Amino acid sequence: MSITVGIQGASGYTGGELVRLLARDPEVEIKFVTSQRFAGQPMSAIFPHLINGSELVCTPLDDLTAVSDCDVVFCALPHVTSMGVVPELLKRGAKVVDLSADFRLEDAELYQEWYGEAHKAPQLLSEAVYGLPEIGSRDQIKNASLVANPGCYPTSALLALAPLFSNNLVDPESLVIDSKSGTSGAGRSPSQGTLFSEVSEGFRSYKAVGHRHTPEIEQGLSQLCGKKVAVRFSPHLLPQSRGILTTCHIRPVAGKNDEDWQKLFNDFYADEQFVRVLKPGVLPGTNYVRGSNYCHLSVIPDKRSGWLVVVSTIDNLVKGAAGQAVQNMNIMLGRPENAALGQLPLFP
Amino acid sequence: MSITVGIQGASGYTGGELVRLLARDPEVEIKFVTSQRFAGQPMSAIFPHLINGSELVCTPLDDLTAVSDCDVVFCALPHVTSMGVVPELLKRGAKVVDLSADFRLEDAELYQEWYGEAHKAPQLLSEAVYGLPEIGSRDQIKNASLVANPGCYPTSALLALAPLFSNNLVDPESLVIDSKSGTSGAGRSPSQGTLFSEVSEGFRSYKAVGHRHTPEIEQGLSQLCGKKVAVRFSPHLLPQSRGILTTCHIRPVAGKNDEDWQKLFNDFYADEQFVRVLKPGVLPGTNYVRGSNYCHLSVIPDKRSGWLVVVSTIDNLVKGAAGQAVQNMNIMLGRPENAALGQLPLFP
Amino acid sequence: MSITVGIQGASGYTGGELVRLLARDPEVEIKFVTSQRFAGQPMSAIFPHLINGSELVCTPLDDLTAVSDCDVVFCALPHVTSMGVVPELLKRGAKVVDLSADFRLEDAELYQEWYGEAHKAPQLLSEAVYGLPEIGSRDQIKNASLVANPGCYPTSALLALAPLFSNNLVDPESLVIDSKSGTSGAGRSPSQGTLFSEVSEGFRSYKAVGHRHTPEIEQGLSQLCGKKVAVRFSPHLLPQSRGILTTCHIRPVAGKNDEDWQKLFNDFYADEQFVRVLKPGVLPGTNYVRGSNYCHLSVIPDKRSGWLVVVSTIDNLVKGAAGQAVQNMNIMLGRPENAALGQLPLFP
Amino acid sequence: MSITVGIQGASGYTGGELVRLLARDPEVEIKFVTSQRFAGQPMSAIFPHLINGSELVCTPLDDLTAVSDCDVVFCALPHVTSMGVVPELLKRGAKVVDLSADFRLEDAELYQEWYGEAHKAPQLLSEAVYGLPEIGSRDQIKNASLVANPGCYPTSALLALAPLFSNNLVDPESLVIDSKSGTSGAGRSPSQGTLFSEVSEGFRSYKAVGHRHTPEIEQGLSQLCGKKVAVRFSPHLLPQSRGILTTCHIRPVAGKNDEDWQKLFNDFYADEQFVRVLKPGVLPGTNYVRGSNYCHLSVIPDKRSGWLVVVSTIDNLVKGAAGQAVQNMNIMLGRPENAALGQLPLFP
Repeated sequence: MSITVGIQGASGYTGGELVRLLARDPEVEIKFVTSQRFAGQPMSAIFPHLINGSELVCTPLDDLTAVSDCDVVFCALPHVTSMGVVPELLKRGAKVVDLSADFRLEDAELYQEWYGEAHKAPQLLSEAVYGLPEIGSRDQIKNASLVANPGCYPTSALLALAPLFSNNLVDPESLVIDSKSGTSGAGRSPSQGTLFSEVSEGFRSYKAVGHRHTPEIEQGLSQLCGKKVAVRFSPHLLPQSRGILTTCHIRPVAGKNDEDWQKLFNDFYADEQFVRVLKPGVLPGTNYVRGSNYCHLSVIPDKRSGWLVVVSTIDNLVKGAAGQAVQNMNIMLGRPENAALGQLPLFP
Repeated sequence: MSITVGIQGASGYTGGELVRLLARDPEVEIKFVTSQRFAGQPMSAIFPHLINGSELVCTPLDDLTAVSDCDVVFCALPHVTSMGVVPELLKRGAKVVDLSADFRLEDAELYQEWYGEAHKAPQLLSEAVYGLPEIGSRDQIKNASLVANPGCYPTSALLALAPLFSNNLVDPESLVIDSKSGTSGAGRSPSQGTLFSEVSEGFRSYKAVGHRHTPEIEQGLSQLCGKKVAVRFSPHLLPQSRGILTTCHIRPVAGKNDEDWQKLFNDFYADEQFVRVLKPGVLPGTNYVRGSNYCHLSVIPDKRSGWLVVVSTIDNLVKGAAGQAVQNMNIMLGRPENAALGQLPLFP
Repeated sequence: MSITVGIQGASGYTGGELVRLLARDPEVEIKFVTSQRFAGQPMSAIFPHLINGSELVCTPLDDLTAVSDCDVVFCALPHVTSMGVVPELLKRGAKVVDLSADFRLEDAELYQEWYGEAHKAPQLLSEAVYGLPEIGSRDQIKNASLVANPGCYPTSALLALAPLFSNNLVDPESLVIDSKSGTSGAGRSPSQGTLFSEVSEGFRSYKAVGHRHTPEIEQGLSQLCGKKVAVRFSPHLLPQSRGILTTCHIRPVAGKNDEDWQKLFNDFYADEQFVRVLKPGVLPGTNYVRGSNYCHLSVIPDKRSGWLVVVSTIDNLVKGAAGQAVQNMNIMLGRPENAALGQLPLFP
Repeated sequence: MSITVGIQGASGYTGGELVRLLARDPEVEIKFVTSQRFAGQPMSAIFPHLINGSELVCTPLDDLTAVSDCDVVFCALPHVTSMGVVPELLKRGAKVVDLSADFRLEDAELYQEWYGEAHKAPQLLSEAVYGLPEIGSRDQIKNASLVANPGCYPTSALLALAPLFSNNLVDPESLVIDSKSGTSGAGRSPSQGTLFSEVSEGFRSYKAVGHRHTPEIEQGLSQLCGKKVAVRFSPHLLPQSRGILTTCHIRPVAGKNDEDWQKLFNDFYADEQFVRVLKPGVLPGTNYVRGSNYCHLSVIPDKRSGWLVVVSTIDNLVKGAAGQAVQNMNIMLGRPENAALGQLPLFP
């Protein structure tokens, strides 16, 4: 084994997913896992599905002794907590992939506005690289010490909209992003709102306006099109565990025929192994990407109105979190980008 | 018992729902039920949940002998089939509530354009009354021989948008209607796409543009605002059986503060027992209306963009089909509008 | 309105279900509802599905001022808590239907053995009547001041087995009771184990032996057959909200042909409106009784082994809790047994 | 690539699962896939989750030209169909793993009794090897030309009971096997009974006695204990797609303390990588093995009665079908037994 990693915050769904992906990679050794709630417990007790994959025992969050043995540390901690830990990890020589929101926004004031706390490590914001490889710079990721792993909703929205915004083909004012997420995005902490009895047969709107992923989407789109964009983003909670499906409605500024829209998307992602533009007539479903790092996309022109509907789907825990983090690590370490990410989706 | 009814097409989910609602109404007697696929079979064999509610046996579709004994006949047949049957039902003296799409569009050409068949009874289109009592005319419904019961999606969309369109407070060009429906809307006929294994954990987009309910929504909105409206309507399939939740995104033409938008909706539905505008901070979920004739609505202003999000939810089989049909029957017969519709929602 | 009731512990699923059933009964007035966690909050905020049904606001558990205005108080509190409250309710003149386990076991020592606490009101155990009307004594229920409402699993098991045990037709030593319950039985308090993400697609065994309902089933069967019975009872957790299905496997002591077993069950429940023995070839499903007070039963002889399989299903929140409590109240007050319980099951 | 395989019947869930497992194995090349319903269509159109995994196009069932290029052919056809095809496959020189029931029962008369058809290739029954490696003979599998891949229910039941029966520690007369399966076991053909609307929130008993897997379980147990065993086996349908959980209730013939029962199971499976005996206090759940070839087992002694409960769980499409077929192939070809089966379970 040539690669050593650690996982901060291993007892949440994202942490468990990192272990699932990495435990069977022959080149990777997980040196440590931490958990505040479950320190002292083995991963196999916290996650029975890992019984056959991991002998690791969680250490407390503040036990950083093993960090210096690691090439990369994944930080799967809650926001605010994460920015308190990351500087120390970097100081000890590890590269960091941070899965929280703490280093995604470049603007510390914007962070404070949306997350309600002053940023604790603003000096790192300029060096943190936003790690959405398909629409960012792989060179920057490769050379980064700190990668901010994108949010699940922003990943799905930005992949859907990048071909349009990067070419300035649409009117940002018209954009509506209507997203639907499974319950695993809400985490594993007990709460009434995500009990099975509350969610089953109970699709609901949960944050019709003002979700914290809004500024992250706006930052990404603004960079793509080169001007400041404000978006309407409305998420919903699905009666299923995994998966995000995002439906974008937008008005083009120039006419194209259907084939040209399709070709635009095909060309944009022609070299991307994890993004798949579906053929006309096939539409995305969350269960066609479940458990995998794939994103499926459809672009559907509405002949009557001239608008476009773009639908994307990802597994929120994989391409929307742990899988993308591994993808970023692979880039940072110069490995094949799909190392540890080779699994096909699990259907049904 | 003073009211006699018949049900054409009783073996689908909507037919079963009509029996569920009416079987326990002491004033109503169901004189006959028909089914093409299950003629000769008792309703209790077709629907085990009705074992305790109905001794009825299905007769063939074309056995119309009992029609003349009925005050009202519910037609829960597929579109196209229905318009072949309705004229004969009327001729035999029954009032008809038609749950298909066949008499909803006032324009026979528009029907042909969207449903692919020439209308077989265009002479009835002008006398058919669109039966959405909360935004139409109860007097017209009361005097109608033929009521076209609205589609499930149009019911959810029109109730959400009526306060805005009837007062011309919004820009129709900006409107996006993003809807999500449970599988019962797809009916009870076997199909691969609605198998449990295909739907569970598998939210998907299924008709991103061009759904047949589009012209019905457009007709309703156009009548409300007095000018021709074209809409963008995009439905999705939920991993749950019952329920529709519709999220409308729209730009107001005049500014109002948050309280005023809330008050607009409160006032608009102040006298309506089946439509409930939720308090600010509470958002609709399908499981809060399940099994009932209620519609829950929220209007959420987005301070940043000035747009509005309006979210509505109904049970597609009740307010979106059988319940609304009973409501229409009640109006036609001068009964209390909530007769047979008194059940509270079933949660969880 | 002629009947006044109160509900202790109204913010759990069972409490919400009592309100759902009683709110629309024109003869019943709910005078008060209490909740420890949600005192001061309206029921419509705790349960959005009750927005259209109840204006009640929860008072604290220990506010008993309204008890003396009530004919009947339903106690939907956790076990142990309940036995601390019930004596005071009786003292204030109310009849009590207790939905906890506290007054179900006649033997205070047995209670202590299984629930880990000394019984606080042992003097009431002899006067408490076990309220399973179909297999107990309606006269006793009618004259009782305190009815112990049966557990959900015991209701399903005892209804399945009563025709066999009351006639001593089976070998108790051979009995296996394998039960499956929806998550609503685990209550509404937040817990990791009943989160949607943990339960969906995740059927599991959760208490393979030693579940607390075991002695309650044993007590019931022993009384039916007149000798002491010990049972093997093994419950499982279903990925659904409502419903219990119990499969009993047992060896008869005397041969009968298939028709005779069916007739035995048919005859035993011939006069019972809430228990329905299904025809041969039809098997119970939880969704055929959902939301209703019905129990569906099948008895299936296994020709090869000579054993019997008896399958029963109920809605755990209705016939397994709130519905049966209302049924008991109806008997206590001399009302029709199905008052407020007339709803047909909700399917799908 | 050194191994070439073909898949007969690739458009069902089991066929899709074989492709999922094998498509990413660098040593395996899939030479052909067949489908009756979908001949001429690409696997990626039949199964959108395979878009990124397979360029294969289905040929008709009777196109056997590529068989001679294959080391192994998997037959994932319906029973009866399979036995018409297998002899020809063998004749053309391929080793065959048959996933149907056609070669599992050693006795052709027993086959006819349970499957209603005379066996078409009885001469192959003696050479077919029952491929449950953990309790059979790996040598026999290694040397077989034809392996009969076990049924999903029998796999779960036999793995649960083998430690007890192979040591004659229990009374077979007392045994009850109560199984619960997800809907994928019912296949992908459209049918009313497995529609989402019929299954969600609708756990049901579907074949209380007389399921065709009964004689297969009996054959296996009889071989383990050396005497003829008859079993009571009762399956149920779960509202989930994947997973089988089997609960076995049985009376031991000799007393042991709890630790000894646990040790018996630990020892029996000590060398097996795919069977994991859980620690006392941990119970199986289907979601802890989903998507993997693992079987989780618990043995729980009931102190009060002296009986044992043994609970096992597998993914019905993996260890219960495609995964076990690949495991058998690996043994037949002398590969590491876990080749292509290394994935950890997908949770949540």
